[in-house]
Amino acid sequence: MFRHQKELQFEAKPDRPNPLIAKYLQELIGGQYGEMSVAMQYLFQGWSCRGEEKYKDMLMDIATEELGHVEMLATMVARLLEDAPVEDQEEAMKKDPTIGAIISGMNPQHAIVAGLGPRPADSVGNPWSGGYIVASGNLLADFRANLNAESQGRLQVARIYEMIDDRGVKDLLAVLLARDSYHQNLWASAVKELEENEGSILVPSTFNRENERKDIAYDFYNFSEGDESSKGSWASGEALDGEGEYQWLAEPKIEGDKPKLQRVTPKMYGTPPSKNKTCKSGYVQHPLGPYHSTE
Amino acid sequence: MFRHQKELQFEAKPDRPNPLIAKYLQELIGGQYGEMSVAMQYLFQGWSCRGEEKYKDMLMDIATEELGHVEMLATMVARLLEDAPVEDQEEAMKKDPTIGAIISGMNPQHAIVAGLGPRPADSVGNPWSGGYIVASGNLLADFRANLNAESQGRLQVARIYEMIDDRGVKDLLAVLLARDSYHQNLWASAVKELEENEGSILVPSTFNRENERKDIAYDFYNFSEGDESSKGSWASGEALDGEGEYQWLAEPKIEGDKPKLQRVTPKMYGTPPSKNKTCKSGYVQHPLGPYHSTE
Amino acid sequence: MFRHQKELQFEAKPDRPNPLIAKYLQELIGGQYGEMSVAMQYLFQGWSCRGEEKYKDMLMDIATEELGHVEMLATMVARLLEDAPVEDQEEAMKKDPTIGAIISGMNPQHAIVAGLGPRPADSVGNPWSGGYIVASGNLLADFRANLNAESQGRLQVARIYEMIDDRGVKDLLAVLLARDSYHQNLWASAVKELEENEGSILVPSTFNRENERKDIAYDFYNFSEGDESSKGSWASGEALDGEGEYQWLAEPKIEGDKPKLQRVTPKMYGTPPSKNKTCKSGYVQHPLGPYHSTE
Amino acid sequence: MFRHQKELQFEAKPDRPNPLIAKYLQELIGGQYGEMSVAMQYLFQGWSCRGEEKYKDMLMDIATEELGHVEMLATMVARLLEDAPVEDQEEAMKKDPTIGAIISGMNPQHAIVAGLGPRPADSVGNPWSGGYIVASGNLLADFRANLNAESQGRLQVARIYEMIDDRGVKDLLAVLLARDSYHQNLWASAVKELEENEGSILVPSTFNRENERKDIAYDFYNFSEGDESSKGSWASGEALDGEGEYQWLAEPKIEGDKPKLQRVTPKMYGTPPSKNKTCKSGYVQHPLGPYHSTE
Amino acid sequence: MFRHQKELQFEAKPDRPNPLIAKYLQELIGGQYGEMSVAMQYLFQGWSCRGEEKYKDMLMDIATEELGHVEMLATMVARLLEDAPVEDQEEAMKKDPTIGAIISGMNPQHAIVAGLGPRPADSVGNPWSGGYIVASGNLLADFRANLNAESQGRLQVARIYEMIDDRGVKDLLAVLLARDSYHQNLWASAVKELEENEGSILVPSTFNRENERKDIAYDFYNFSEGDESSKGSWASGEALDGEGEYQWLAEPKIEGDKPKLQRVTPKMYGTPPSKNKTCKSGYVQHPLGPYHSTE
Amino acid sequence: MFRHQKELQFEAKPDRPNPLIAKYLQELIGGQYGEMSVAMQYLFQGWSCRGEEKYKDMLMDIATEELGHVEMLATMVARLLEDAPVEDQEEAMKKDPTIGAIISGMNPQHAIVAGLGPRPADSVGNPWSGGYIVASGNLLADFRANLNAESQGRLQVARIYEMIDDRGVKDLLAVLLARDSYHQNLWASAVKELEENEGSILVPSTFNRENERKDIAYDFYNFSEGDESSKGSWASGEALDGEGEYQWLAEPKIEGDKPKLQRVTPKMYGTPPSKNKTCKSGYVQHPLGPYHSTE
Repeated sequence: MFRHQKELQFEAKPDRPNPLIAKYLQELIGGQYGEMSVAMQYLFQGWSCRGEEKYKDMLMDIATEELGHVEMLATMVARLLEDAPVEDQEEAMKKDPTIGAIISGMNPQHAIVAGLGPRPADSVGNPWSGGYIVASGNLLADFRANLNAESQGRLQVARIYEMIDDRGVKDLLAVLLARDSYHQNLWASAVKELEENEGSILVPSTFNRENERKDIAYDFYNFSEGDESSKGSWASGEALDGEGEYQWLAEPKIEGDKPKLQRVTPKMYGTPPSKNKTCKSGYVQHPLGPYHSTE
Repeated sequence: MFRHQKELQFEAKPDRPNPLIAKYLQELIGGQYGEMSVAMQYLFQGWSCRGEEKYKDMLMDIATEELGHVEMLATMVARLLEDAPVEDQEEAMKKDPTIGAIISGMNPQHAIVAGLGPRPADSVGNPWSGGYIVASGNLLADFRANLNAESQGRLQVARIYEMIDDRGVKDLLAVLLARDSYHQNLWASAVKELEENEGSILVPSTFNRENERKDIAYDFYNFSEGDESSKGSWASGEALDGEGEYQWLAEPKIEGDKPKLQRVTPKMYGTPPSKNKTCKSGYVQHPLGPYHSTE
Repeated sequence: MFRHQKELQFEAKPDRPNPLIAKYLQELIGGQYGEMSVAMQYLFQGWSCRGEEKYKDMLMDIATEELGHVEMLATMVARLLEDAPVEDQEEAMKKDPTIGAIISGMNPQHAIVAGLGPRPADSVGNPWSGGYIVASGNLLADFRANLNAESQGRLQVARIYEMIDDRGVKDLLAVLLARDSYHQNLWASAVKELEENEGSILVPSTFNRENERKDIAYDFYNFSEGDESSKGSWASGEALDGEGEYQWLAEPKIEGDKPKLQRVTPKMYGTPPSKNKTCKSGYVQHPLGPYHSTE
Repeated sequence: MFRHQKELQFEAKPDRPNPLIAKYLQELIGGQYGEMSVAMQYLFQGWSCRGEEKYKDMLMDIATEELGHVEMLATMVARLLEDAPVEDQEEAMKKDPTIGAIISGMNPQHAIVAGLGPRPADSVGNPWSGGYIVASGNLLADFRANLNAESQGRLQVARIYEMIDDRGVKDLLAVLLARDSYHQNLWASAVKELEENEGSILVPSTFNRENERKDIAYDFYNFSEGDESSKGSWASGEALDGEGEYQWLAEPKIEGDKPKLQRVTPKMYGTPPSKNKTCKSGYVQHPLGPYHSTE
Repeated sequence: MFRHQKELQFEAKPDRPNPLIAKYLQELIGGQYGEMSVAMQYLFQGWSCRGEEKYKDMLMDIATEELGHVEMLATMVARLLEDAPVEDQEEAMKKDPTIGAIISGMNPQHAIVAGLGPRPADSVGNPWSGGYIVASGNLLADFRANLNAESQGRLQVARIYEMIDDRGVKDLLAVLLARDSYHQNLWASAVKELEENEGSILVPSTFNRENERKDIAYDFYNFSEGDESSKGSWASGEALDGEGEYQWLAEPKIEGDKPKLQRVTPKMYGTPPSKNKTCKSGYVQHPLGPYHSTE
Repeated sequence: MFRHQKELQFEAKPDRPNPLIAKYLQELIGGQYGEMSVAMQYLFQGWSCRGEEKYKDMLMDIATEELGHVEMLATMVARLLEDAPVEDQEEAMKKDPTIGAIISGMNPQHAIVAGLGPRPADSVGNPWSGGYIVASGNLLADFRANLNAESQGRLQVARIYEMIDDRGVKDLLAVLLARDSYHQNLWASAVKELEENEGSILVPSTFNRENERKDIAYDFYNFSEGDESSKGSWASGEALDGEGEYQWLAEPKIEGDKPKLQRVTPKMYGTPPSKNKTCKSGYVQHPLGPYHSTE
């Protein structure tokens, strides 16, 4: 259950309207790593949480904070769009090349669809998608997703910070940068805690490694020319998981054959066998098929 | 530039056809964390790499390996679909309830669209999307994305491993589990290396922290009832970035006001002011607007 | 700014696990008219609101309530998935045809991707999309969108209510049905209030009707055979907007010509003119083109 | 079955080419509330119509009219693109800043993909989606969707009308404004007719209200600070459905508990229980599970 | 402009309801090569047609026919859904395993969203997308797209024909198969006509081939092991375009270098240069950059 | 299995940075007919190939070549973005209108999301979609898809060639034009070979034509006014498939009735029958329904 409080947690006032900045900020609202993504991601992780209460509580705290970030950015975008050059554009454009550039650079949906308000979309107009968010039911996996999300997010905020001149917008970005710093610290701490508790850096830590091909679990295969990749920390020495030794192989191990598929029922109308030569691999009912008993 | 070699790196032969398993494996081909995603993600990261050669070379190695994983899974799916109950289904369904369940559970596009071959889509049929992949130009951010991707990926493989009984498919999954183990080790090692080199765990490490609101960069705000979140490693003690001290605040800091938007030009046809009362906030040309000089 | 309260507003406990019902409920979480849609729709409308405070406050109240609805449904889905037949499926399937049907009918991502938790997607697996939501900056238009959303939503809940037997799930649906009843009443009341205040049922009410083709603004054109459409309330009598008289025309008015496009620059590589006959409409620089002065 | 007639119903000739207006008009062709949406929406509603013939006939009439609207707009866009500055852009751009703005503002797919023709997409380039349309099999619900669609549509046309200077385009928009006026009248009339006939404003009107939680069906819950929402017509007095009395509650009713999910099978590889403390909620086979008999 | 005629061109009556067949037919309505795709594709091609009238007229004829095909299929789906087992499913499922399979195999949106009507989506539920259609402004290119579309379409119809037992549905599919035969003939004829008229099989035929690298325009590069590809008609002899001789090269020509990207401004916050070694390729203002004059 | 070779097959160096050209080239990377599409399309066709080895080998060769094309274009885009005007944009914009146009025309995700690198998306920002690719299991159908893809692709390259002035980019486009020429030749040759071998131009060639409505398989129906369509090669004479005679019918054949759907169970909550008149078509349990035996 949620409650709404009217104050913004931090102020969201631009120095002056600017529809290009409004377009940029959409990335932080509805982009792959925008605030809608992190809010929804932490909510679904919290709602699916079957683990310790402190993780669930923490997830709900941060998710709820992020909802407020969407609100601050949505407010900022609405204000940046006030006074946008939306009327009689052709005339305005001819008078002043800067206005011309703004008109042609503006997101047209900001005017036509939203009437000078924010959109649930990114900076090029792709609508936000549920496909962005990650909630797997495994907290170590998901906290790594979160650490990535806050890293990508802070990077994008830093870039926009340099692209613009508006002090008011920069003040809000300075807040977001700080909160993304904290959230990176937080997820990194929580990842460390879980790794220590689970006794492994591998997700999932509980899968019985006897069931994987552990003999190939520490190999680096050199699939490209050159051996620069052999110089990294991943190429030799003890593996981070403490259970093996990295090895760099100049040539990949190959165990498989050239695959050759069987023909299937002609009722699927695949390419018929060539008439010009003897066809050796015609369709044969699979003898071990689970659907037709062989008796 | 790429070359193709006909052998599969590892074998991809099911014990017997099974269209339900074929449907599950689609998640590993074309899902958010399937092999198409990691292959394309590492390719775009490699192609955008402006850093040291060893990272670029390594990215291209792993990307190229993952392309081969898509191939192994695509081959496996094609073989699992051989002998699927695609003809005269109604009759077949009435005879045998297990066939009935298989028919109704099968992905219909495996038959209708692909003629018993794999699809560039996930286990419920969503087509693979370029929106899944991450390539930001910042390797530390992206390697965290990669560590997450391999964590989610290995988790999904482990789950399918338990859901099915087919030994041949399990043999391939055992390979994928091992490679995902290695790749988790690899990205974790590379992350560690970059963090040490950049001297910070924060992405981006080069943003001048004087420009962020560092005074709020170590606060945990308790946005939900209960204080379980105060028990985590993120709530007190020195922050992982070594530049501050975590603090857990029972109440979030609030600096902002209730936002109140200005009316905009009536030509956007927003809701007109109420006729029943004096309207104090009619549309006023913004005095600092960049487009209309005030003179 | 938001706060989270740990209690669910209403209880969300199924009588017993059932992954098929879990699949159905996804429509109410992440479908076009699911709770994610209405929550986000009302939030964006509230954040864009430039009108009277009572509308903004009301939008934020209902939006916040709907966020809690997502939470209740997400919790219900997680519980319906407990004990789903996810292990050794083939064997289980052969033993019991009902389990077979459940396995083949289950959303595979509920197991593989979410580890038996809810997904931000609809009942066939399409991820939720920002493209579903409506926030135009005109409250009368948007409240009509909301009335539609609550109508579609309650209809879907009513259908699922009849499809299932689980008392615990039905208890939650009974709550949603009541709240959707209230919300239909609410939006209908708000629509009525705005129509009365704006003095028109047309959106936007402030567009100067002299600028539209008012002479054709009350015509019904019979574009199909048969005249059953002439029997509706829309076909004769005074129009609801009070400014005209409906008329039903057996034949549509036609004012336009057959369109014939000009050829464009050959550098766009359209189909070249036929060699077999005299081409009368070759590419001619448009004399009034805005880009090339004619002097 | 359909027939095509070569005349456009109304003329579609711009005064002069203008690729920026072409970009705007795409919203009316392939946007969420563009003509493709309403045409397809009314078609699917007509084809699914199990009710009275007059509704089906009317739906097919209006749908068929809207197909002609797509055609008029597509023709207009093609003409607006004639003579667009597509060749040797860099040189052209340096000569004239207005051309520079046009080049950078133009939808690049208008040239590269469509060769100066219209696109089945909106003004920022999102392809039209079947996910936009609504056809539920309940006419009252769907006519509300239609009333909303025509309201959003007319709003967007009105906005573009103000943004541009081209008389020829405005003439077509004046037609669309009038037809959207009529269609708003039409759907409002049809909604009224159905509400009267069904004897209720609630969708679906036939759901037995004893089965919903009628005791909470007239409550407004104040989920946000402030009581401005209590001043609306939805907050007190008789409800529009005539079956209850609105009440505004300063505090939401709360009936539920804090949710606590059960652990599920370890084969789903969720987060394992903490090793540091006694775990009280380990995985227990659900006693009422439908799949495993308890005997 | 369009007209609607009430008769279906061909009958659309199943022998008996069957929601699984309804699910399959969705591929023919809203799949990548369903009737919505071809109808819309031919419409946009017709509306963009700047060539001879006979092509435009023909495109509009076929497009209009295809709209009627959507109608026939939509009607068929609605009828196949009548009497679907939508109520009290759990009980019904336990009684009869075939009903169990049907319930679990049914598209849940057919009931929940559409109330037993058709959906603008494919057989796995992906909404139809404007991204499927092709209209480039070059008829030869587009007629090849059309020939492909009718080929894929007829293939899918043929597959469904074999999958089902219902005579009434098969009668409609027999009509679609015939029309797809004709349309394949038609597009193949039109392609041939255009190729002859344009004097080339290459699209676009009017591009000056002096501007392409004609020296590499007839090479087959063997990028994979094995030389089976050398046995095709594409590997030797005169090229179909009549302007060159195919040659099969055992090794691809290589002209390029290893790419090495420049560092960009540090304000984009890419990975900083390693501190451990001399960095030779730091960021240098590009001397030929178009934005900063060098004076 | 794949290998990576560090050299680009052909050089990818622009004369100077230009972010507008970078935006255009995205169409060739991640558009519907970009190199990601053809690479993935040929891979999936190759992996699904159940036919002769020479086709599979050839598909893998061309697919592998196309992967290298993505790499060349990705490299080119990265270089075109070097030195883009990303910092302090407002100030830069005011100084120079050309820079203003470039800033407003640039894809903002090139800076904010990718840090001046390529994106897996098209020229307006739509992410690449698995929905673009075609792999049906029938080679004749798929080779027609490929011929179309290379036609659309070469057309787009030709257009961009004319739009830009950069010699270095044009050099790469000249390579792509040549390779697209070859690939058109190749697919046309392969189509011809398959048509000859299968003995039919119809896909699928093996469907028994007795089962289609062959009596209507050569009819052109004139669904629009005017008879220009009767002048094409598709309107008279022997059909290309050699099995019939084209005929042009001034009026379409009509065999169907007006469809009238049955009412379905009231539990789906469709529109209830009108109270004002005798309802003749109430819901009747379908006597031949497969789910409820009539005994």
